[in-house]
Amino acid sequence: MTGRLERRTVRVAMLGCGVVGEGVLRLLRDNASLIAHRLGAELEIRHVVAARPDKPRADVVPLDRLHFDPQRALSDPEVDVVVEVIGGLEPAGQYLREAIARGKHVVTANKALLAETPDLVEAAERARVDLYFEAAVAGGIPIVRVLREALASDRVVALRGIVNGTSNYVLSRMTHDGLDYEQALAEAQRLGYAEADPTLDVSGMDACHKLTLLATLAFGARLTPSQIPTDGIETVGAIDVEMAGRFGLMVKPLAIARLLPDDALDLRVRPALVPVRSPLAGVHGAFNAVLLEGAMLGPCLLSGLGAGALPTATSVVSDLVDVARNLLVGAVGRVPSGAIPATERRLSRVCDPGETVARYYLRFDVKDRTTVLGRIATVLGAFDVAIEQLVQRAGAAGAPSHVCLLTHPVRERQVRDALRETRTLHDVVGAPRLLQVEES
Amino acid sequence: MTGRLERRTVRVAMLGCGVVGEGVLRLLRDNASLIAHRLGAELEIRHVVAARPDKPRADVVPLDRLHFDPQRALSDPEVDVVVEVIGGLEPAGQYLREAIARGKHVVTANKALLAETPDLVEAAERARVDLYFEAAVAGGIPIVRVLREALASDRVVALRGIVNGTSNYVLSRMTHDGLDYEQALAEAQRLGYAEADPTLDVSGMDACHKLTLLATLAFGARLTPSQIPTDGIETVGAIDVEMAGRFGLMVKPLAIARLLPDDALDLRVRPALVPVRSPLAGVHGAFNAVLLEGAMLGPCLLSGLGAGALPTATSVVSDLVDVARNLLVGAVGRVPSGAIPATERRLSRVCDPGETVARYYLRFDVKDRTTVLGRIATVLGAFDVAIEQLVQRAGAAGAPSHVCLLTHPVRERQVRDALRETRTLHDVVGAPRLLQVEES
Repeated sequence: MTGRLERRTVRVAMLGCGVVGEGVLRLLRDNASLIAHRLGAELEIRHVVAARPDKPRADVVPLDRLHFDPQRALSDPEVDVVVEVIGGLEPAGQYLREAIARGKHVVTANKALLAETPDLVEAAERARVDLYFEAAVAGGIPIVRVLREALASDRVVALRGIVNGTSNYVLSRMTHDGLDYEQALAEAQRLGYAEADPTLDVSGMDACHKLTLLATLAFGARLTPSQIPTDGIETVGAIDVEMAGRFGLMVKPLAIARLLPDDALDLRVRPALVPVRSPLAGVHGAFNAVLLEGAMLGPCLLSGLGAGALPTATSVVSDLVDVARNLLVGAVGRVPSGAIPATERRLSRVCDPGETVARYYLRFDVKDRTTVLGRIATVLGAFDVAIEQLVQRAGAAGAPSHVCLLTHPVRERQVRDALRETRTLHDVVGAPRLLQVEES
Repeated sequence: MTGRLERRTVRVAMLGCGVVGEGVLRLLRDNASLIAHRLGAELEIRHVVAARPDKPRADVVPLDRLHFDPQRALSDPEVDVVVEVIGGLEPAGQYLREAIARGKHVVTANKALLAETPDLVEAAERARVDLYFEAAVAGGIPIVRVLREALASDRVVALRGIVNGTSNYVLSRMTHDGLDYEQALAEAQRLGYAEADPTLDVSGMDACHKLTLLATLAFGARLTPSQIPTDGIETVGAIDVEMAGRFGLMVKPLAIARLLPDDALDLRVRPALVPVRSPLAGVHGAFNAVLLEGAMLGPCLLSGLGAGALPTATSVVSDLVDVARNLLVGAVGRVPSGAIPATERRLSRVCDPGETVARYYLRFDVKDRTTVLGRIATVLGAFDVAIEQLVQRAGAAGAPSHVCLLTHPVRERQVRDALRETRTLHDVVGAPRLLQVEES
């Protein structure tokens, strides 16, 4: 445990000066007196380390503190806290390891780095420095803090998140405005909600990184992203969104973690269906949300803007205030960065995705509706997959028709086995679509 | 600042052993090892002080620690933290003042006490003890912590809450199931959501206490409940709920605090109308929610169960863990109990409720629809109150008809002045109803 800081100024080096970095500088400038009042001390930016000397800078960037040499910032003995807003695995990881080794506290927004290298949190704990990362999950929503502190008294039994704003925007536009996937994605890009290359978002990889961190915090799990079965939203069709509505359901990009009775974790990133009256169904557009379920607490929803310079910067600076408070009273390490001490964390058993029991939505594209339905129903029945509702829809001229149905609750493995069989059926075109219904 | 606790056991005295008290004991028993893992120490109940010796006790109550003498608990030098779950102003207030004077930290669920006597927080700060009260507002929702810590970097500009579960249950049943007020309230009582005497809930007084605390935290205001204009839900009719739906709106029991450009606060507890796509419209039944709006953060919604033994106990025990963490690292006073130090808090100017500019829903009960509408519209026009939409509805045989309308945005004072005038109109029966539209 470090001693108490005697100065009333906490000194900060910021690595990275992109959109989020500029947001952090704007908050520190515009809210300086408010923060000083609450903290009883000042936050002083000593270094802003950028990568590109030629880039034009916003007026909030203090040019006298701006330079391009990470080592100069990391080796400055006056620096108390390093803020990392570079993103990506390297060199960000190397810089943070060096900061930790030099006894500096760390605030980062880097979900990929933390998810892929859980040893960073452990290194920080061994070095007795704080490593805070509220901005790494769901931008401005204080979910990390809530899991780490507000739920310290309870056991989380399930967690369902909409943690990728691009995916939620695309599916919301498809749901509410009848766009198809390509139209909705193009519009997200035009509005700046999606990157030029949206792969990380729409493939579910970004959500997978975030779920890794959330499950680590909520369940004390030791996990890597590769353990989480991850499907993107690219294969959701306008017809699926429409039929979901007919069944009283809505397609949402979910990240799900559930604690099973045998202590295994059921983890999943996938587009899934939620009832239209579910709290998650009301999370529209670029909003993010996390629905927690505590054993004693019951359900608790947090929702807000999951991305954007200022919401993300709000979380970065709140972490800075937190670290500064710890420094000022000599309470570094007061709360384990990862909610429970790294030594108490255990390797989690992730359950086989085939074991999930749920209702499933299935869509078959077929050539001849009159004869094929009986064959599909026969195959499903042979695998004990019972149909609750079914709608047939003619396709456009020359295009296949759609058979869309909702099953009764059934083990996912049985559905997948049945679907493999239906693919061999005459008149069934391409691979059937499957979407899980998430009841909560 | 107190020094660091050398023991690895934090000793607790609990005053009160009703529904919430038993919930606290259940959590401490059932989650004991989980809490010990996270905290690295034990929470030990040394005293449970009840009021009624004759009451049967649940199996979670440790009978060897149960007694009926508050002084014995308060004067025990071994006690580190006093938990107060008695409720009401006195004797709870006197006990807490004594605990603080003796240097004990305090966790309380008592909204009325904290709202009516803001000097308690100040006394705790002077005595350098922590006073935590997450359970006092919105049960299990970690709104106090979020305002105090997660938003330390930002300025809250508005806060809109559904903080009384009874009122929300009653209005939800009226909205979704077509019940009238009396039927819905009777059902709430039958299900245990409403007290035998529901006055505190349906009158808005309970929400007023909670809004006092929320505004204190969010705006650094120094306020008392008497400064907040408070209306209950008793006068909302089934017809108002139905007509709101016709206008694309939903009646919700709101507690509103808004920071105006001139630094005055617009504070209000009242049933109001929200658009059906608003995040608050999705908060059903006995659920509570708070929708924050940060200057930089944008909107952020927290929702969950606002009452009930276990959700409330979750908040009490999370506070206990927080206080214990402070004790274990010697960081008491790390975060001001009231979000900013009491010395920085300022008396807030509360704006005249007549100054609010909004759309308003008005309902006139009239005898003769054919002639009275022109007279009503003429009076409204004379006060510059413009009508956006209007619906007339015949009453039951012999009962008055209803003229329901929605105004364009207008100052509330003008509407009230106009309504005073319409009361003198021939064929208008009783007082017109007014509901504000809260756009966010």
